[in-house]
Amino acid sequence: MENISSTQNQKVKNWTKLATKKQRTREGSYLLDGWHLVQEALNYDAPIKAIMVTQEQFDLHNQDFKDIDEIYIVTFEVMQHITDTVTPQGIAAEVGIPVAYTEVPNELSGTWLLMDEVQDPGNIGTMIRTADAAGFTGVVAGNKTADIFSPKVVRAMQGSQFHIDVKQGSTLDWIDMLHAEGIPVYGTELNKDAVDYREIEKSDSFALIMGNEGNGVQPAVLERTSKNLYIPIAGKAESLNVAVSAGILMFELKK
Amino acid sequence: MENISSTQNQKVKNWTKLATKKQRTREGSYLLDGWHLVQEALNYDAPIKAIMVTQEQFDLHNQDFKDIDEIYIVTFEVMQHITDTVTPQGIAAEVGIPVAYTEVPNELSGTWLLMDEVQDPGNIGTMIRTADAAGFTGVVAGNKTADIFSPKVVRAMQGSQFHIDVKQGSTLDWIDMLHAEGIPVYGTELNKDAVDYREIEKSDSFALIMGNEGNGVQPAVLERTSKNLYIPIAGKAESLNVAVSAGILMFELKK
Repeated sequence: MENISSTQNQKVKNWTKLATKKQRTREGSYLLDGWHLVQEALNYDAPIKAIMVTQEQFDLHNQDFKDIDEIYIVTFEVMQHITDTVTPQGIAAEVGIPVAYTEVPNELSGTWLLMDEVQDPGNIGTMIRTADAAGFTGVVAGNKTADIFSPKVVRAMQGSQFHIDVKQGSTLDWIDMLHAEGIPVYGTELNKDAVDYREIEKSDSFALIMGNEGNGVQPAVLERTSKNLYIPIAGKAESLNVAVSAGILMFELKK
Repeated sequence: MENISSTQNQKVKNWTKLATKKQRTREGSYLLDGWHLVQEALNYDAPIKAIMVTQEQFDLHNQDFKDIDEIYIVTFEVMQHITDTVTPQGIAAEVGIPVAYTEVPNELSGTWLLMDEVQDPGNIGTMIRTADAAGFTGVVAGNKTADIFSPKVVRAMQGSQFHIDVKQGSTLDWIDMLHAEGIPVYGTELNKDAVDYREIEKSDSFALIMGNEGNGVQPAVLERTSKNLYIPIAGKAESLNVAVSAGILMFELKK
């Protein structure tokens, strides 16, 4: 256990830099902010590398830290700096990105959400949280989808990365692997000629692909799916938010 | 038509202040930012009080402005100021809040979304957009729901306020009025003892109540509904995002 009171401390600088993709890739870790997320990490045996905590929060929660090697008691100012927050909760953690993040599961089965070029961190986090709630096996962030370990996505995921498989990879490669296992792959498009999602039978084995906020799923991806689905729009809105669409489809299609 | 190049111009100051609830209430109007929203306002005959536009955007779109009395050609700097944006699109409009915003429709029928104490502007805007897409008759912002004419909500609504009825009022008063018309009112709660939403028959006449992000629908409201619905959570997530829940329910319940 160590005390840190200077924002110029090298460790503090490194934790602060975890807000950037570059630093997360270099360190193989990301930041959790707040007791709720740290508690989820502890409950699900996530690889916690360090806990940074104010004295007040340490006194409240230290009985839960007995298996953690690196604990740093930091000042409020240091906590503000690390979390880039004016009123931080006073507890944060550096957690390892899952070792298997870019690996394909040995046995591919169940229900998967593939995010293809999704850009908004709030949408990405909300979709992962919704996939968790719907009982999905896992999610795959396509290589051009925004990084799921950025602070905004981590906040929106609300700990769901500890509950279901989270993977990164090529959407096209994943489609090939799913086809090889006989798992149907459903694209989505804003096209009345696509298949009405209500015509698909509920199942416990399929993959659903959601696309970019502005452009939808790439044509090259739509060409390789089993079917492409459409949510009929009854009113005058031009489209649905991607996370809302994902929620409607995941809850409707999953048995 | 008038040219404005100073951010100190009184009109510019007034438009800029439309970012605040106080000014919107005083003026009875709010701001649209960008051609897409201005075009929606024009298409749906919204009460446009003024259009503020750069020379470049005026040259592109002026054939659509013939019924607009007040047009102001402004500089890029003035546009940045009005829209509080570094890279504004170069066109904005001051639009009247609907006169009937706080009035109850003469004949209450159809499908309504009631937002009770919802706080996040993105969630509010997304729910209104989703209600539009689902073919709902209208939405009601409860008195403690964040103002739907704030810049962030307006951005997320994507023009749906021009497509469906938007109202503000007391959630409890609206429940009484809906009951008086024999329209079923469904609350929502994170409670396994509530009614599974899949047990409700599709209908073209009902109201759905969504609540606060943290606390859900108030107990006083849940006591006055016809039924309270629950979305079963299959995974380990504690809850769903309110806009995602609203989307699942609206698309499932509406005939």
